[in-house]
Amino acid sequence: MTTVHKELLEGICSEVIGQLRPGVEEQSAVKALTEMIIAKLNARAKEMGIEAQAISVGSTARNTWVSGEADIDIFIMFPAETSEEDLKEQGLALARRVCESERYEERYASHPYIHARFHYAGREFDVDLVPCFAVEEASRLKSAVDRTPFHNEYIIQRLTGSGLEDEVRLLKRFLRCLGIYGSEQRRRGFSGYLCELLILKYRSFISLLEHAAKWRYGERIEVEIETEGGHEEGGRSKYRGDDPLIVIDPVDPKRNVAAAVSLYSFCRLIDGAREFLARPSREFFIQREANPLSESEFQRIAKERGTVFVLLRFKAPDVVEDILYPQLRKAEASIRRLIERNDFVVYRSGVTMEGDKAVIVFELLVWQLPAIKKHIGPPVTAVRHAEKFKRRHPPPYLIEDGRYVVEVKRRYTDVLSLLRNELQAASLGKDVSKAIEEGYEVLRIEDIPFSTDIGLFFRDYFGLCSPVIRVEPEA
Amino acid sequence: MTTVHKELLEGICSEVIGQLRPGVEEQSAVKALTEMIIAKLNARAKEMGIEAQAISVGSTARNTWVSGEADIDIFIMFPAETSEEDLKEQGLALARRVCESERYEERYASHPYIHARFHYAGREFDVDLVPCFAVEEASRLKSAVDRTPFHNEYIIQRLTGSGLEDEVRLLKRFLRCLGIYGSEQRRRGFSGYLCELLILKYRSFISLLEHAAKWRYGERIEVEIETEGGHEEGGRSKYRGDDPLIVIDPVDPKRNVAAAVSLYSFCRLIDGAREFLARPSREFFIQREANPLSESEFQRIAKERGTVFVLLRFKAPDVVEDILYPQLRKAEASIRRLIERNDFVVYRSGVTMEGDKAVIVFELLVWQLPAIKKHIGPPVTAVRHAEKFKRRHPPPYLIEDGRYVVEVKRRYTDVLSLLRNELQAASLGKDVSKAIEEGYEVLRIEDIPFSTDIGLFFRDYFGLCSPVIRVEPEA
Repeated sequence: MTTVHKELLEGICSEVIGQLRPGVEEQSAVKALTEMIIAKLNARAKEMGIEAQAISVGSTARNTWVSGEADIDIFIMFPAETSEEDLKEQGLALARRVCESERYEERYASHPYIHARFHYAGREFDVDLVPCFAVEEASRLKSAVDRTPFHNEYIIQRLTGSGLEDEVRLLKRFLRCLGIYGSEQRRRGFSGYLCELLILKYRSFISLLEHAAKWRYGERIEVEIETEGGHEEGGRSKYRGDDPLIVIDPVDPKRNVAAAVSLYSFCRLIDGAREFLARPSREFFIQREANPLSESEFQRIAKERGTVFVLLRFKAPDVVEDILYPQLRKAEASIRRLIERNDFVVYRSGVTMEGDKAVIVFELLVWQLPAIKKHIGPPVTAVRHAEKFKRRHPPPYLIEDGRYVVEVKRRYTDVLSLLRNELQAASLGKDVSKAIEEGYEVLRIEDIPFSTDIGLFFRDYFGLCSPVIRVEPEA
Repeated sequence: MTTVHKELLEGICSEVIGQLRPGVEEQSAVKALTEMIIAKLNARAKEMGIEAQAISVGSTARNTWVSGEADIDIFIMFPAETSEEDLKEQGLALARRVCESERYEERYASHPYIHARFHYAGREFDVDLVPCFAVEEASRLKSAVDRTPFHNEYIIQRLTGSGLEDEVRLLKRFLRCLGIYGSEQRRRGFSGYLCELLILKYRSFISLLEHAAKWRYGERIEVEIETEGGHEEGGRSKYRGDDPLIVIDPVDPKRNVAAAVSLYSFCRLIDGAREFLARPSREFFIQREANPLSESEFQRIAKERGTVFVLLRFKAPDVVEDILYPQLRKAEASIRRLIERNDFVVYRSGVTMEGDKAVIVFELLVWQLPAIKKHIGPPVTAVRHAEKFKRRHPPPYLIEDGRYVVEVKRRYTDVLSLLRNELQAASLGKDVSKAIEEGYEVLRIEDIPFSTDIGLFFRDYFGLCSPVIRVEPEA
């Protein structure tokens, strides 16, 4: 890299950092609000006779949040021997008491927690109040969130105050602009903790990108190198998953922190890293407006493509997105196979939400077929099978490649009637399956009003928001 | 098999034999005409100072011809040391002299011969006069036909006069009715000599069928079991070809007499054997009238199928059928691959002749496609390839299954324009390629007058002549 190019890269990064780093006012508001909530929680716990201790975790605790995006995470830690029932009941009761004067709702991930919106110092903050067990080791957790305090401790000790916080902010914004920040199932990108570990490992945003540009499938990263016991790098963890990216969790070495990173997100970062390093620009850090595609734009593009768009639409089951999206993708893949088993040809597909409805979109190259098809029988030389086949199918028979073949009527000559009649033959997720049983529509896109949600989906689908677009045909 | 069933089978066979065995008059006419031609040939040879000896070969020499189908084969044997030029020149001159008063023409197989039509005793006979070398051993032949006198000798010594001649006739007629009699490339069925060997091996038509009903791919048959030298059955021949049926030539054990039998013909006999043994009927020996399909029948069937028929038609190159048909099949397979590389879907295909034109027929399930297609690039992780791909293709890029993908315009959105423009991309046989260079038509079947030849082709294609129909997609 030339010096000039390096200076350009670093210049852009320091400019962007100036925008991402929270100002003094935001910092102190977050700190004060967090302390206030923790104090209230601990005081109420004492009043209510609940043995629990509130702590601040997440990016606001570690000083790695991006200005204007502060999410305050507060964990209410119960002794490990607390029963699950008590934890839920007492944890939620405590959290509710503290949020009384604010807007809040109960949410569910692996277990319930309270999400609230606090008004403080003229600002609004999203606050999550999450009960958890104070287990002794991260590897001996009782619920999925019990690991978080260990992550918190680990990052605070090594990263917070080290001067690497801004590098984490750069990375987070960069990933968000690529559409791959966040480990939720809908996105399957990079979590905040994963960003922190990557920066800890590579010591700067640019150094990370330089490495990422050369990553190979199954890339394995361990942050800490333990050498005293004779272990070498890579020897510490027994993790053997087939993931695109493997980042061993330093607090629980049998776990891959990047397990949620999809092949798409992995590739997207590699591509984005190469692009930014080759042609540095502040554009990489500018979040684009989510302009939906208009109906007429869609129609122009669809006409040019000549393909047919078929939608499967149904009321989304009442489960959280992290449960819903894997099922939608599973349904998408399974229905693709159903379509292709019937000799139609899917070009691309995708899943999205339209209000409270789930929508699976299929773009088809072949959506109609002639009435006839071949039914391939056994080899002519297989005496018993041949007899059985002939008993089942009337003549005439063809012989092709040494096998009996009969020509039969194709059951479905268009993809709409196939989907309207055979959806049960596809293996859908449990909740999606139930939702579909209660009713669904199979439509050509021309036959429904073109909504904003659908317009947003197709803006991404056609790659109109970024030079590399998001496609995830995997289930 | 019950006794009743066996009697039924045998009853049918002996009834049919009565029709197939030539009567006394036909027999003596064939004998007298053959002897007359041989005498004339030998006399003329002496006159012309040519050292050559005429002999009778083939089914009329062996008494295995079917009544009304006598083809008289006479070989003019030259000393092995004769030059090829002398053989051709003197052989043809001699043959022409003898045929002077009849209708005749020069024909070519591996080398030229005279085909004549003789009028004799109020009947007409096809006579072939074929020059050959009198080699010492069948395995040391100088031309492809030199083996025939050895075959002749072998069959006359073992089969002629043994009482098995009628069994050969039954088999020949049975195969002809199945459409698989004859080893010419157009048919790729069973030759007369192969029929004789099979009957020698299994001693009766019914016994052969009982064995054939259980044949497996690569079935290996040796007629003579040589034991004196310690050899066992199967040990004599080193033949190791990958053919469906292997029948070792007793006069040249490195050769497979059934090499020309296609997988289709092999399966067709197996199926026909099972059918006849299970439900014996004289129908199996009745040659059907070759009624061509009419245009309106064709249209009714085509409409019901919903497929599209596209024909490639060109003036057939001026080569014998045995050269032409393998090339047509090669072209058929190669063009099928061309069509399928372009994402159209061929349902079935076939080759035929229409007058002096060769026709390759494609029945299509998908003949039109949308304007767009995917061009799949390298894995995102492959740095160098990725760079090259991006230089060659403008954004946007999709990422699918870890690879870059660009959406490009499909060059051909219908199969007619594909074939009209890209036929050169298919690997056609030498003569077919040259013929096509001189001009060809690509047509939907609706766009040409529906000829008798095309009607005959489709009668077979749709399986309207027999319960199992002929399809050979192999090249």
